[in-house]
Amino acid sequence: MVMQKPSNRERILSAGLRLVHERGFGAASVRDIVEAASVPLGSFTNYFASKEAFGLEILNLYFDRTREVLARTLRNDALPPLERLHGYIQANTQAPDSDKSRLGCLFGNFSAEGSYGSDAIRHRLVEIFTEIQDAVEYCLHAAVRAGELPQDTECSDIASLIVSSLQGAMLLAKAYRSPIPTEQFEKLLFSTVLR
Amino acid sequence: MVMQKPSNRERILSAGLRLVHERGFGAASVRDIVEAASVPLGSFTNYFASKEAFGLEILNLYFDRTREVLARTLRNDALPPLERLHGYIQANTQAPDSDKSRLGCLFGNFSAEGSYGSDAIRHRLVEIFTEIQDAVEYCLHAAVRAGELPQDTECSDIASLIVSSLQGAMLLAKAYRSPIPTEQFEKLLFSTVLR
Repeated sequence: MVMQKPSNRERILSAGLRLVHERGFGAASVRDIVEAASVPLGSFTNYFASKEAFGLEILNLYFDRTREVLARTLRNDALPPLERLHGYIQANTQAPDSDKSRLGCLFGNFSAEGSYGSDAIRHRLVEIFTEIQDAVEYCLHAAVRAGELPQDTECSDIASLIVSSLQGAMLLAKAYRSPIPTEQFEKLLFSTVLR
Repeated sequence: MVMQKPSNRERILSAGLRLVHERGFGAASVRDIVEAASVPLGSFTNYFASKEAFGLEILNLYFDRTREVLARTLRNDALPPLERLHGYIQANTQAPDSDKSRLGCLFGNFSAEGSYGSDAIRHRLVEIFTEIQDAVEYCLHAAVRAGELPQDTECSDIASLIVSSLQGAMLLAKAYRSPIPTEQFEKLLFSTVLR
């Protein structure tokens, strides 16, 4: 079996995702991106109508990985619900390559760059956060049904809090270069909000 | 009484703070900053040894305003403690010019740009978050002494959670262009964590 060489398009996407995660979308120029991918400058426009179009593609590439995490944690009906929630938080805070703690979450970083960016990117971020929040809410409802949480748990509100507070904890973990903010979030989530 | 015209240095700082808050520190070039300030390009280096030195100054300028908010809310012993905590959260989420919801918190934005930036800036961010967290903890201890919170409240851990979760809520409010994430954070903080 012969491994296919990655196409220029794939090289731009993977090197570009890495560079944008390192520097931020606004600070990484198209020239920086093609240099990181070792492809000619002109090839960028062969594959992407605009930098915005490229930005949407790397968000989707990164979200593909997130969807795999959601499937094996929050939406994994084979495991007890609160264990799935722990698994989801730890997948975000203990990434094997520790990129998450050094670079933060790409969705949070894009959000912080915010309104100077494009409306299309902002709308995509809202869709992504909503899909994550739906998975958290799905898991919380399962925990209520399993008797792991009280019947009157406000699953939707708490799912929203978990998504935003986890983003904040990852943001401070990045500033502090320390896992303490995410560890404290996880500890207090289970000892106070979900008690 | 004659109003003094702002100096070029002051113009660079105020226009630069505004621009960096809009676009991000990495995406706002020195050229962009002096253009926004309507001063000659060369004057930047008269006042700032580097873009990093400028970045530290705008962080401090922004933090001066934060310190005023801390003094009139969290550290204002004339008011009941939990009312001060509400006041602090609302000062962050309902800024009169609504910049906080549109642009997010400058400290959070700088944190998201993170490791590509300078260590000096990252260390300053850690000092700033620590000073804010100390003020939250001061207020929580006051609430315990006043009988507004139980004696066994883990003031230090909860102060850390409040600072990071508020950052996350402001980040999602910016992505959603909506106050709902910060409103839900405030509601659930008082109904679950601080009950």
